Amino acid sequence: MKDKGRITLLGLGDMGTALARAWLADGHPLTVWNRSPGKAEPLAAEGARVAGTVAEAVAASDLVVLCLLDDASVGAVLDGVDLTGKDVVNLTTGTPGEGRTRGAWVEKRGGRFLDGGVMAVPEMIGDPESGAYVFYSGSRDLFDAHRKALAVPAGTRYVGADAGYAALYDVALLSAMTGMFAGVSHAFALVRNEDVPLSGFADMLVGWLTAMAPYTHGIAGHLESGDYTEGVTSNLAMMTEGNATLLRTAEEQKVSPELLTPFMALMERRVADGHGDEDTTGVVDLLAR
Amino acid sequence: MKDKGRITLLGLGDMGTALARAWLADGHPLTVWNRSPGKAEPLAAEGARVAGTVAEAVAASDLVVLCLLDDASVGAVLDGVDLTGKDVVNLTTGTPGEGRTRGAWVEKRGGRFLDGGVMAVPEMIGDPESGAYVFYSGSRDLFDAHRKALAVPAGTRYVGADAGYAALYDVALLSAMTGMFAGVSHAFALVRNEDVPLSGFADMLVGWLTAMAPYTHGIAGHLESGDYTEGVTSNLAMMTEGNATLLRTAEEQKVSPELLTPFMALMERRVADGHGDEDTTGVVDLLAR
Repeated sequence: MKDKGRITLLGLGDMGTALARAWLADGHPLTVWNRSPGKAEPLAAEGARVAGTVAEAVAASDLVVLCLLDDASVGAVLDGVDLTGKDVVNLTTGTPGEGRTRGAWVEKRGGRFLDGGVMAVPEMIGDPESGAYVFYSGSRDLFDAHRKALAVPAGTRYVGADAGYAALYDVALLSAMTGMFAGVSHAFALVRNEDVPLSGFADMLVGWLTAMAPYTHGIAGHLESGDYTEGVTSNLAMMTEGNATLLRTAEEQKVSPELLTPFMALMERRVADGHGDEDTTGVVDLLAR
Repeated sequence: MKDKGRITLLGLGDMGTALARAWLADGHPLTVWNRSPGKAEPLAAEGARVAGTVAEAVAASDLVVLCLLDDASVGAVLDGVDLTGKDVVNLTTGTPGEGRTRGAWVEKRGGRFLDGGVMAVPEMIGDPESGAYVFYSGSRDLFDAHRKALAVPAGTRYVGADAGYAALYDVALLSAMTGMFAGVSHAFALVRNEDVPLSGFADMLVGWLTAMAPYTHGIAGHLESGDYTEGVTSNLAMMTEGNATLLRTAEEQKVSPELLTPFMALMERRVADGHGDEDTTGVVDLLAR
């Protein structure tokens, strides 16, 4: 059996620590560094080598994983460090633009670059049952060379050579989730003062959202074809009538409609523009600046 | 085998017509009425009896189902009609308050009342595989007496004696869905001008939303216990930092953040009020007027 590859990990916040534990448990020789060195102590007891400086940490392994506070921290921490021949995997949260710029910055310094967007909380890392995964984009060669090591803490999904795409997919999914929980918050606000068993209500909400989420495929199809009326069963004209009932109910239940009204306003704009026979796909057009 | 019970159906829009077809296909003697009589003609060919007046239609069956435009139409259509001994099932879209008021109105006229909230589009009616169902609330006796007939077009979920609850559950679920599709719209807006295969992206979105929807149970538990920090792994302080990345990405991708900012603002308010260690549950409190 081939020895497990050496890994260097910079940044031992909650996520970095969880990653470190997963690689240690899998038998990877691991060198860690953190700005405040106290974070490394428990990991040292679990077998990690603790580097005194970033340069020492980076020199210890070909594969260098970053899990820092933000992109500016990445620039500050790696400033002046020799990255020649290094495979830099950046799991620091950032925007697509930051991923692209950082990728070019690393390549200019002689390294290969892969950006990652972690779709998990630290508690899910290292648990194959958790469904956790990481979007990766950037150097395909780097990804292929370290695929097994990268797959230890969470599943992997390579989404393109553009180093910005990992963050793009990550942020897009988190944005969709933000909307979902805005809606869920409104739903709970409607029922919370009624004689409604909230755990049973949550079951119904989850079942309903799970059943409705696949309509997302229809929106994708419409954006691809350009015909937003194809296969539409519940159209915008009907939906905006339904929205009136949603708003009147919010008023009856003394719940602010502020989480629903921006989307409803865009739906109304599409109807006013003569698109009442479409579904909500056209709202995507209206969001473009 | 007992004969199938007679049913009268008032209102032959798309949903009413779908209900009529489901009951006819199941062998129920069906009397229909619609304000504009042309809608009844195809159903007559399929075996429905077409009533010339509302009074005649109501007289034909003990079970009278309403599927009209709105609650005002229900009042107008049934005005002056004898409802003594009638079991009135109202599938007309309305608010919880309208359901309650209409229930009292029917009972005052000698009938029993059950309100319904249909969680389906007409295409799903009569198809046991579709997952369609109807929330019912109001007279439990009426529900029990006609349970089998009511279960023909779609599944049934009785949610309480309060005639307003069917609409309350219905609207709450639709409101949550509205939020989800607001988020999905934003997500598509972020990626649509990139080299991202939209159908594959939709698969990821659906998988992610389906995986995250069960966090709804945590919110229900928090609202029940009053402790919004219990079991929180990703807290508001972290989430609001993450929101900054979402907003910067929207700006990079030239997407208006208007569908996300209202929820983010409420999250910020909770953090400012000292609740950074909680999850989003406290937003439900802020929505109360």
